[in-house]
Amino acid sequence: MNYQALYQNIKSKKSYLCVGLDTDLSKIPPHLLSEEDPIFEFNKQIIDATYPFAVAYKPNTAFYEALGARGWESLQKTIDYLPKDTFNIADAKRGDIGNTSAMYAKAFFERMNFDAVTVAPYMGEDSVKPFLDFNGKWVILLALTSNTGSQDFEQLSLQKGDLLFEEVIKKSQTWADETQMMYVVGATKAEKLQEIRLLAPEHFLLVPGVGAQGGSLEEVSKYGLNSHVGLLVNSSREILYASNDKDFAKKSAERAESLQSQMARFLDKL
Amino acid sequence: MNYQALYQNIKSKKSYLCVGLDTDLSKIPPHLLSEEDPIFEFNKQIIDATYPFAVAYKPNTAFYEALGARGWESLQKTIDYLPKDTFNIADAKRGDIGNTSAMYAKAFFERMNFDAVTVAPYMGEDSVKPFLDFNGKWVILLALTSNTGSQDFEQLSLQKGDLLFEEVIKKSQTWADETQMMYVVGATKAEKLQEIRLLAPEHFLLVPGVGAQGGSLEEVSKYGLNSHVGLLVNSSREILYASNDKDFAKKSAERAESLQSQMARFLDKL
Repeated sequence: MNYQALYQNIKSKKSYLCVGLDTDLSKIPPHLLSEEDPIFEFNKQIIDATYPFAVAYKPNTAFYEALGARGWESLQKTIDYLPKDTFNIADAKRGDIGNTSAMYAKAFFERMNFDAVTVAPYMGEDSVKPFLDFNGKWVILLALTSNTGSQDFEQLSLQKGDLLFEEVIKKSQTWADETQMMYVVGATKAEKLQEIRLLAPEHFLLVPGVGAQGGSLEEVSKYGLNSHVGLLVNSSREILYASNDKDFAKKSAERAESLQSQMARFLDKL
Repeated sequence: MNYQALYQNIKSKKSYLCVGLDTDLSKIPPHLLSEEDPIFEFNKQIIDATYPFAVAYKPNTAFYEALGARGWESLQKTIDYLPKDTFNIADAKRGDIGNTSAMYAKAFFERMNFDAVTVAPYMGEDSVKPFLDFNGKWVILLALTSNTGSQDFEQLSLQKGDLLFEEVIKKSQTWADETQMMYVVGATKAEKLQEIRLLAPEHFLLVPGVGAQGGSLEEVSKYGLNSHVGLLVNSSREILYASNDKDFAKKSAERAESLQSQMARFLDKL
């Protein structure tokens, strides 16, 4: 999906909501456990219920890998099921030497047909570039993450003055523009979004951490929105596990709708 | 496998060779393609042939993921096949917020029974710690990698004086000692090994990049060995693809033996 199509979808749904599919067998409603593929059955119902309110979905690969080959099958079925007009992100945080990153790109873009994959920047340009060789596909590069460990390295000051995550944002813009690259910026660092907007005025930012991790949608939107929206705000646990009962999909839709209606208000002010 | 057992295996085999299982369907001998599981059949024959000369094996997860659920099955069969006295590394370069890293740890340590997993440090302490909660399991943290992109961030100077990868090595030593943590240091940076030995005198270093990527075993050993050996030197393509014919396993054993016999000489001098 290209930049323009993503922007149009956001405008027509009045939503920049991404639903994180961190699907955990130990947390889904027990009545699903007798299904042949409980993970896929859960995802299917969550997707059906939240689709009117969400423009993007983000399966977190760790939750599928923890189940081995069976989990990988559930992931494939989920991506095959996702509607054609959603922006689908493999939250995989991959990154390796060139020939290996090329294999990861093949896995997520060719075999599974994701639109985007999250990539860790530590190993530098040639670990990121192979993901950019696929037409219409995106890299979402880790910049400033939502966890406390972001202090350990991401926020260290470099000799030349910038913090490490700022240098990641600056340098990576020479590798790809806003039509192929986004940045992960945690919602728990909302005050930093203003600063990041100056560094990357045109880029979409993928913002996890609203809800369970404590970030505020209002603050994120205040500091993060740009003239082309430029935000995808992710919510995982808050939407997925809104109820542990047979009404789980209905409850998840209510949460998604509540976030979407707030987003509609922020978009109206743009 | 614990530190002492690894050290004993190295002493008894006179080898610190790790064989990287970057198994690529497009590179394995064509006669294997008619097998039910060509990837596993190739790995099995490589393992049988190189086992006398190697103490560790390192499947690279990208090559298995590129084949989807079927690849994940080949990976599981490979880890199940590996002998009990080899040190088995998932070269996965994972790392995410705590609850997600815990899922990756579960995938590699519980479901697949690897001894170690390679982890990317960018997201800091709480992204690494969940991997350290498993008794007898190891984190191999990316420090200074073998690719040219290591200049982009890993080798940047911090305000406090160190390079980023040096800070990674220093800070992470407060999270775990040499019995649970190793570092990835590329062989193409052999001259840096001397310096890294001063920062982490007791730790094992996993050194990729000998062979296809241009690193020299002699230089790596000269600068990297410590009194407890402290090195695992990986070779992937040079061993795996020594021949593209029916003699491939024999040829791979010859390459492995050649590396091992050099290692034996270096170990004798310790």
